[in-house]
Amino acid sequence: MADKVVLLDDYVSMFGMRARVALAEKGVEYEYREESLQAGKSPLLLQMNPVHKQVPVLIHNGNPISESLIIVEYIDEVWKDKCPDLLPAHPYQRAHARFWADFVDRKVYDAGRRLSGTKVEEQESGKKDFIAALKLLEGELGDNPYFGGENFGFLDVALIPFYTWFPAFETCGNFSTEEHCPKLISWARRCMERESVSKSLADPKKVYDFVLFLKKKYGGQ
Amino acid sequence: MADKVVLLDDYVSMFGMRARVALAEKGVEYEYREESLQAGKSPLLLQMNPVHKQVPVLIHNGNPISESLIIVEYIDEVWKDKCPDLLPAHPYQRAHARFWADFVDRKVYDAGRRLSGTKVEEQESGKKDFIAALKLLEGELGDNPYFGGENFGFLDVALIPFYTWFPAFETCGNFSTEEHCPKLISWARRCMERESVSKSLADPKKVYDFVLFLKKKYGGQ
Repeated sequence: MADKVVLLDDYVSMFGMRARVALAEKGVEYEYREESLQAGKSPLLLQMNPVHKQVPVLIHNGNPISESLIIVEYIDEVWKDKCPDLLPAHPYQRAHARFWADFVDRKVYDAGRRLSGTKVEEQESGKKDFIAALKLLEGELGDNPYFGGENFGFLDVALIPFYTWFPAFETCGNFSTEEHCPKLISWARRCMERESVSKSLADPKKVYDFVLFLKKKYGGQ
Repeated sequence: MADKVVLLDDYVSMFGMRARVALAEKGVEYEYREESLQAGKSPLLLQMNPVHKQVPVLIHNGNPISESLIIVEYIDEVWKDKCPDLLPAHPYQRAHARFWADFVDRKVYDAGRRLSGTKVEEQESGKKDFIAALKLLEGELGDNPYFGGENFGFLDVALIPFYTWFPAFETCGNFSTEEHCPKLISWARRCMERESVSKSLADPKKVYDFVLFLKKKYGGQ
């Protein structure tokens, strides 16, 4: 029986983009179902992720998997023969990649949310924390082409979707990421040369439209 | 060369307890170094976890690993020959266990923090969310002896340390967990019959003293 793979996703979601990049890296064909915030949550989403009711959800032969980093690990474990593993083989390197991916979720996401959000008193601290978090990541990258070293890996998948949000963050916070973190931007451009990345990521203009939509919906300026 | 394993931990930390239980399950000998909140952070902790500056940190032959669930996965991957794996072999079951462990971190921890915290306006919602989260976990357990099915597994390790905080939460919120979730309490007592658990967990009285210390420090009633 051929695998049936469905992705419940929102085009502008950085978490959904992770699943799209990982599936593309592994060459997995799948059916894409858009769950946009504007349209409301579908009965299928509520059935497949009743706990968090959030995208992305990967449905593999009827089995739902939620939470983007868990989805990426699942894809890496299931489609092992398709390309180099996203997570390295050695337990310490695996723990290291997981640590920094968790850092992206906790620090980069949270700072970006504040900096582009509607609470004026949070915007400055969000901007400061966002740049500080990216600088730490840039230090972690060092002179390697990818966070996975010579290979595009787990942390690359976890972080690259945020690149599509950088223009929105930069406009909201009036700063240039490249000025603060030139090596990180070089890394992002290197990732964008991969078809798995460039074809999976959202158009930054659409992301910015979405940020404006959120600001209007939740009462910002 | 024999492995050198050091755990930087705080006796009452539910996250540190996860590492202690996992090391005990695998029969790994290690040096325990207490990092109590009262005493301040040691230079070694700041050196080994410069990003979050938090316990637990597992130092294995000089390599630091941080974040409790990442530590438990690391222990499971490194000491594979010692006992049954904590994570199941099948990718879908692995994703499932990771999902619920993440749920514990996001929902159970957060609700417990609010319910036992110093902000009166958060205590009621914390209590409600805490009981709701435990009910979901009880449903996930079903009639199995453990969350790992017949075997004590990853989610069991992730959740059981919270049991030592239940009396503190119950006193703060004036409720009985057992009344709401009798099967979950039976599961916890079953876990406590394992030496790896009973010898690794904190004394609930000490946990409650710590909660009172926090309330005093951060200005509660």
